[in-house]
Amino acid sequence: MDDNVYKIVELTGSSKSGIEDAIQTAITRAGKTLRNIRWFEVLETRGHVENGKVAHYQVSLKVGFTVED
Amino acid sequence: MDDNVYKIVELTGSSKSGIEDAIQTAITRAGKTLRNIRWFEVLETRGHVENGKVAHYQVSLKVGFTVED
Amino acid sequence: MDDNVYKIVELTGSSKSGIEDAIQTAITRAGKTLRNIRWFEVLETRGHVENGKVAHYQVSLKVGFTVED
Amino acid sequence: MDDNVYKIVELTGSSKSGIEDAIQTAITRAGKTLRNIRWFEVLETRGHVENGKVAHYQVSLKVGFTVED
Amino acid sequence: MDDNVYKIVELTGSSKSGIEDAIQTAITRAGKTLRNIRWFEVLETRGHVENGKVAHYQVSLKVGFTVED
Amino acid sequence: MDDNVYKIVELTGSSKSGIEDAIQTAITRAGKTLRNIRWFEVLETRGHVENGKVAHYQVSLKVGFTVED
Amino acid sequence: MDDNVYKIVELTGSSKSGIEDAIQTAITRAGKTLRNIRWFEVLETRGHVENGKVAHYQVSLKVGFTVED
Amino acid sequence: MDDNVYKIVELTGSSKSGIEDAIQTAITRAGKTLRNIRWFEVLETRGHVENGKVAHYQVSLKVGFTVED
Amino acid sequence: MDDNVYKIVELTGSSKSGIEDAIQTAITRAGKTLRNIRWFEVLETRGHVENGKVAHYQVSLKVGFTVED
Amino acid sequence: MDDNVYKIVELTGSSKSGIEDAIQTAITRAGKTLRNIRWFEVLETRGHVENGKVAHYQVSLKVGFTVED
Amino acid sequence: MDDNVYKIVELTGSSKSGIEDAIQTAITRAGKTLRNIRWFEVLETRGHVENGKVAHYQVSLKVGFTVED
Amino acid sequence: MDDNVYKIVELTGSSKSGIEDAIQTAITRAGKTLRNIRWFEVLETRGHVENGKVAHYQVSLKVGFTVED
Repeated sequence: MDDNVYKIVELTGSSKSGIEDAIQTAITRAGKTLRNIRWFEVLETRGHVENGKVAHYQVSLKVGFTVED
Repeated sequence: MDDNVYKIVELTGSSKSGIEDAIQTAITRAGKTLRNIRWFEVLETRGHVENGKVAHYQVSLKVGFTVED
Repeated sequence: MDDNVYKIVELTGSSKSGIEDAIQTAITRAGKTLRNIRWFEVLETRGHVENGKVAHYQVSLKVGFTVED
Repeated sequence: MDDNVYKIVELTGSSKSGIEDAIQTAITRAGKTLRNIRWFEVLETRGHVENGKVAHYQVSLKVGFTVED
Repeated sequence: MDDNVYKIVELTGSSKSGIEDAIQTAITRAGKTLRNIRWFEVLETRGHVENGKVAHYQVSLKVGFTVED
Repeated sequence: MDDNVYKIVELTGSSKSGIEDAIQTAITRAGKTLRNIRWFEVLETRGHVENGKVAHYQVSLKVGFTVED
Repeated sequence: MDDNVYKIVELTGSSKSGIEDAIQTAITRAGKTLRNIRWFEVLETRGHVENGKVAHYQVSLKVGFTVED
Repeated sequence: MDDNVYKIVELTGSSKSGIEDAIQTAITRAGKTLRNIRWFEVLETRGHVENGKVAHYQVSLKVGFTVED
Repeated sequence: MDDNVYKIVELTGSSKSGIEDAIQTAITRAGKTLRNIRWFEVLETRGHVENGKVAHYQVSLKVGFTVED
Repeated sequence: MDDNVYKIVELTGSSKSGIEDAIQTAITRAGKTLRNIRWFEVLETRGHVENGKVAHYQVSLKVGFTVED
Repeated sequence: MDDNVYKIVELTGSSKSGIEDAIQTAITRAGKTLRNIRWFEVLETRGHVENGKVAHYQVSLKVGFTVED
Repeated sequence: MDDNVYKIVELTGSSKSGIEDAIQTAITRAGKTLRNIRWFEVLETRGHVENGKVAHYQVSLKVGFTVED
């Protein structure tokens, strides 16, 4: 975190395999349109259950990226 | 909430007639530029008062939409 | 709120028509198994959007009822 | 919100008919002693239940008014 | 989240192996008495330490299930 | 807090004599139907006033108990 | 909590002897100018320490009273 | 903070020049009707923007004053 | 805040000289792509330290702007 | 609170007899290594239950002390 | 959690491989100077992103340890 | 924030001249015993009032520093 201006967006990613993978899924998708993603912060961890098993994890993130001049 | 990636934006809508109408106003306006809005969450309900009457309600929302590949 | 012991449960009700109706829906359903419901508190107001319209409201409540001896 | 000084008071209004009416009830009563009410913010929405029906809604508000010199 | 009524219960599960496993442990146990579990939300992640190692993770969840008529 | 699954319920107890007694009142009542209560956490301390005196204290608790297999 | 309008004020009371006494001190003082105090809610419990002993407790309260027409 | 009873009021002050000046503006105005103001706490810092510049800062405060017998 | 629809974005600005300057930095940068910025709200104030001195302040803001039809 | 620098530490004290005693227990222990403790703030009140009785109270505190030059 | 006095410290650990490993990293480091660590609580999960990948996770913890007499 | 372990301490600094100076005061004092301070986060901004003027500002901070091996 140096002296740039950051913009922050909120995203929810999901994954069948776990929390870290849901985070990476959201960041990978965000990277298609946003350059210069620098950090994330987890806001909420949720998930869906089917037949008594966690079917997928959903992780909501704030994602920060530098705004170029 | 299936296994898509969601993006979340924050909006404030207003209405003279009530809280539900202020929610719909924000979502209608968002729909002009965002396809695939799926859900909303109320963050804050406020309003303006004129001459001792509620002049309009203002409802702040998080609005989630699926990001297409 | 007199000197009884209260138990609190959390419920989410939904309605196509509005927030108050979603509250009543949750309380009506809870009343099938719980006697002596006395009060509620809104925790969260959310909803689903279909084709740019609010399809239904979802209101999460704490519901308090007296526990009889 | 221009460059006045605002004072904020907290009130709870109630209504048998709905949330918006409970808000207006609180503001109408406040207007008997406070001039220049400008805005409100909902803090909490609660209510009482009798015989499985919402008997009345109670809405707690912050109400802001300008302080005159 | 369609137009059902949901009931929400709070549980704490634990696991020696990790956070996802502690979540699944709580949901598996809840499934013995609750049918129709649909989603969970993580409230708190804690754990115990023995001899400088994480001995087990404890994850507190809200778990939502549909209430059948 | 070992590696059991805990279930958490929310209760409000009251007492004319003080906060600790209101806590014990809630736990005593809960113990009539719940075995294995292990801990509590205070969520909120409130009370009623009559004629300028605290008439009774009301303490809201989360109460955790182990779920047996 | 019936269908009156309540006004809420915030007070901090203190006591050398304990938390309940600090609550009563605040309510007694408030009762000199406010009629119809009905309830309180504890916001914060703090205190001062002198020579390693709690010198007095300070309890911040919201106090609600009915507004008469 | 000695063993007095404090009353707390909430105010919003504004200033074109900065945050500290907005705080002082609110306290100066409060001092016209309240004697014995002792402390403040910042609740929220907001502001208005005109033509891409901060036009004024708005700072919401809790202000505590001793209540005399 | 009249009856427009607002969109809210989150930004972090930084400055070597102080908090107000960090706010202005974020708003100036946002103004390059967003017309009609109307208000901001401070979410968080942080900073970096180098050699025992504050090297720069970082202020996170919500910034609201009107959405034109 | 004059113009000193304070350092704040977090502690949990416990007591079989009540909340005030748990606070004093934590402060007494802290006083063995910290001089100049000035104030405390209660963060959380919890406890353990054995055989349907509160076995002991656990109170988490922030404790502030002046840092000497 | 028996009747000891606990002290709580706040730490941030990081790891390239995942959240659990970042927790263990912080606890291992804390164990070099603190004996008797008993529990942790996750406060915040963040991370850095480089080239569209999570470069490392950062987990902030409260860590509690018993204070010996 | 690279892959070090950080320890976080909480401090309150004060200043007659303003918020930034109170922050620097706390960090300067902390730097006498802590090497490697890297960042701070403002938790709370308060102050004392004397004769209707802000007598000094008090800013509570979390201060993070790297722990060396």
